[in-house]
Amino acid sequence: MSDVRDGPGPAADRDARAGSEDVIGAFREDGAAALDWVASYLERVREPPVLARAEPGEIRGALPASPPDGPEPFGAVLEDLDTVLGPGLTHWQSPRFFAYFATTSSEPAILAELLAAGLNQVGILWRTSPALQELEETALDWLAQLLGLPDGLHGHIEDTASTSTLVALAAARHVRPGRRVVLCSEHAHSSVDKAARLLELELRAVPSDEAFRLRPELLDVEDACAVVATIGTTSSTSVDPVPEIADRCEHDGVWLHVDAAYAGAAAVCPELRDRFAGWERADSIVVNPHKWLGVPTDCSTLWTRRPDVFRDTFGLVPEYLRVDEEVASLSEYTQVLGRRFRALKLWAVLRCYGRSGLQARIRGHVRLAGLFEGWVRAEPGWEVVAPRPFSVVCFRREGSDEENERLLGRVNDSGEIFISHTRLAGRYVLRLAVGSFRTTEDDVRLAWDVLRREASQ
Amino acid sequence: MSDVRDGPGPAADRDARAGSEDVIGAFREDGAAALDWVASYLERVREPPVLARAEPGEIRGALPASPPDGPEPFGAVLEDLDTVLGPGLTHWQSPRFFAYFATTSSEPAILAELLAAGLNQVGILWRTSPALQELEETALDWLAQLLGLPDGLHGHIEDTASTSTLVALAAARHVRPGRRVVLCSEHAHSSVDKAARLLELELRAVPSDEAFRLRPELLDVEDACAVVATIGTTSSTSVDPVPEIADRCEHDGVWLHVDAAYAGAAAVCPELRDRFAGWERADSIVVNPHKWLGVPTDCSTLWTRRPDVFRDTFGLVPEYLRVDEEVASLSEYTQVLGRRFRALKLWAVLRCYGRSGLQARIRGHVRLAGLFEGWVRAEPGWEVVAPRPFSVVCFRREGSDEENERLLGRVNDSGEIFISHTRLAGRYVLRLAVGSFRTTEDDVRLAWDVLRREASQ
Repeated sequence: MSDVRDGPGPAADRDARAGSEDVIGAFREDGAAALDWVASYLERVREPPVLARAEPGEIRGALPASPPDGPEPFGAVLEDLDTVLGPGLTHWQSPRFFAYFATTSSEPAILAELLAAGLNQVGILWRTSPALQELEETALDWLAQLLGLPDGLHGHIEDTASTSTLVALAAARHVRPGRRVVLCSEHAHSSVDKAARLLELELRAVPSDEAFRLRPELLDVEDACAVVATIGTTSSTSVDPVPEIADRCEHDGVWLHVDAAYAGAAAVCPELRDRFAGWERADSIVVNPHKWLGVPTDCSTLWTRRPDVFRDTFGLVPEYLRVDEEVASLSEYTQVLGRRFRALKLWAVLRCYGRSGLQARIRGHVRLAGLFEGWVRAEPGWEVVAPRPFSVVCFRREGSDEENERLLGRVNDSGEIFISHTRLAGRYVLRLAVGSFRTTEDDVRLAWDVLRREASQ
Repeated sequence: MSDVRDGPGPAADRDARAGSEDVIGAFREDGAAALDWVASYLERVREPPVLARAEPGEIRGALPASPPDGPEPFGAVLEDLDTVLGPGLTHWQSPRFFAYFATTSSEPAILAELLAAGLNQVGILWRTSPALQELEETALDWLAQLLGLPDGLHGHIEDTASTSTLVALAAARHVRPGRRVVLCSEHAHSSVDKAARLLELELRAVPSDEAFRLRPELLDVEDACAVVATIGTTSSTSVDPVPEIADRCEHDGVWLHVDAAYAGAAAVCPELRDRFAGWERADSIVVNPHKWLGVPTDCSTLWTRRPDVFRDTFGLVPEYLRVDEEVASLSEYTQVLGRRFRALKLWAVLRCYGRSGLQARIRGHVRLAGLFEGWVRAEPGWEVVAPRPFSVVCFRREGSDEENERLLGRVNDSGEIFISHTRLAGRYVLRLAVGSFRTTEDDVRLAWDVLRREASQ
């Protein structure tokens, strides 16, 4: 593009057609620069402050107030990425990102996104991209196998768990139209609340036990259309007792939605499968490969054993899309009509890591979290405050909530690592989430060193 | 990756960390191959049959039933893209794709998607990526300026218009909770119907006139919380009389949502602005840059002059995300919590084409559609069946619906072009949509030749 658009100006640009020889030549050149930019970024991603240091409005203020009248070279975009946007980046790709849930956009998935953008498949009907639809079905089936889910589930990809949970609860409402209550633990994700609001369902939070698990004996499912059980809550990664919840749901014909957005990936390891007992009985299950499976945002996978309910809820084909197709389109199972080729990056990850590669990474993260937990337990003045079923450690320094909050601030201000917090049993709690494919034992050791250093000040 | 994963096998892989020197070396190598794949694809994209010829199940059947146990090289993914997935691709990037709305994933946007995947920014709170949020705000502001929208609108990006319309109608429902009716023309997009269903609102279709425009005198807004006016309907690209509709809405305090998903891009040309009269009075407006502005799926832009209503409807910040931020996160204005860095590709397009470059493309498409319309009008036995405000021509061959349907089948089976159909005033109608940045006059001429050839058989 630089050749064309950087050349004799707008007049020349008007003659340059996307896809033409000149444009493709420039694309190759600009593409090499973009690729080098990404590779260099990943090589140095351990260096910058993990949490962005920009002030509110700083990035916006550094950008022009108006778009350019004529074309600029692609190189100018790359340049501004460093100089203008750089200070506003929080480095989710950093091995020292331990906040929320640590994620990875792995190398095969990055390239798959390049391919997907190049192909620009748009899944509306099956025929508008058989490859998109059938690869999505296949990748979801492969992933279900890796996670030990039952055969025969119907799966599709949504953008995020917010949407996966929304459409699952919409299906639940559709099945039991008179029932307007959704039950979940007080530690369920905020997206359950948001979905209930949009669907005008009443959300009732069920109290949890001392390990932050829903107490199934307190479930009153009488008016409920759905129960959301969480395997790996966002606060503490606690695991609700799904078998008992499933018993109650089955007895009363209530939809069971299992939110395993973060933790679901861990089911790739047979030795961690005990945490997933009962999820095979769910009506719908969400797992986010963009959290712990090396896939960049966005990629949330949703399975159901009741696809007909989804199709009843969402199926609607207008005349301009009606053709003699025997195949139901994936858009008939959800709210959104057009889907992009997200399956490509998931498929690339499943192939380029394989079962053993993914297992090795999950095991590595669980091991590192265990190490960190051990260091906290062994250190006077520090406390582990929740069981650790996966790769997130909830802990705190002795002292007040305010002291812990200030400690978090100092740690994150150092730029060396980034961690986040939550509140458990009324107390302010620090969270260290291991989950980046790039994180090593040294990175976790550094996190502990920074925490102790800042705590001692 | 090939170096590492294709080498001594899984054992070696387990030592290879994402981001490590070996992995980045392989990424550079695999990336060059992926980039070359995309460039070569675009160079040859005029050649293959536009509409996929795969049989249902063919692609799935050609893929392994189970994921690999160990890692495979990235090169194997690239190879299967050609051999296994190839027959299942419908070529949305082809200059001869004239179906639905023709789209373009332009070269700068493709590379921006590569960068976005490399950075893997996740917009949850402002601080999780100030660059993402402020670039999104800036790009939406730039685009609003290009389209001649009023100053001061609040904008954000959704995946598709299905979601943009859903959240806009949710805001409308929130403002007028007792009112459960949504009004739109009988030609409104199916996503309005789907949104109303999810929101449990009653959709009432208002009859349209002979030019497929909503008849404002038939609007009974008494029980309505919202009216959806369409500028550029999907069937015929007709333009509802927005000024009259806005009068009715303002008089009764009813939310006006303007769906300009396809046509909105045309407002970049001042000479086409008359079609947009009144949209500046809307409460919310959706335009899809992934339709006619060179941005790959997915990128739907939503503006509102009532951001407080959106924040009231969707704002909900759970404890684990609560920090002392003065800045509202974009997630407080919509259903979904996490957003990817979609703004990057929109920004890249606005810069690399500039105002003049985008105007030239829109004008070119309108001109080509005008040429085609002229050829149809001049040819005995053919008929133009709807006004053409933009770049879509609705036409038919004399004869029965069945004959026209068979003609469409033969044309698409030829593989040379791909067009779609609709139904207008009860008749089966062919549609030719110009909208690809790669389309030339020769491509449109070819479409007409193919149509006449197949019609004469």
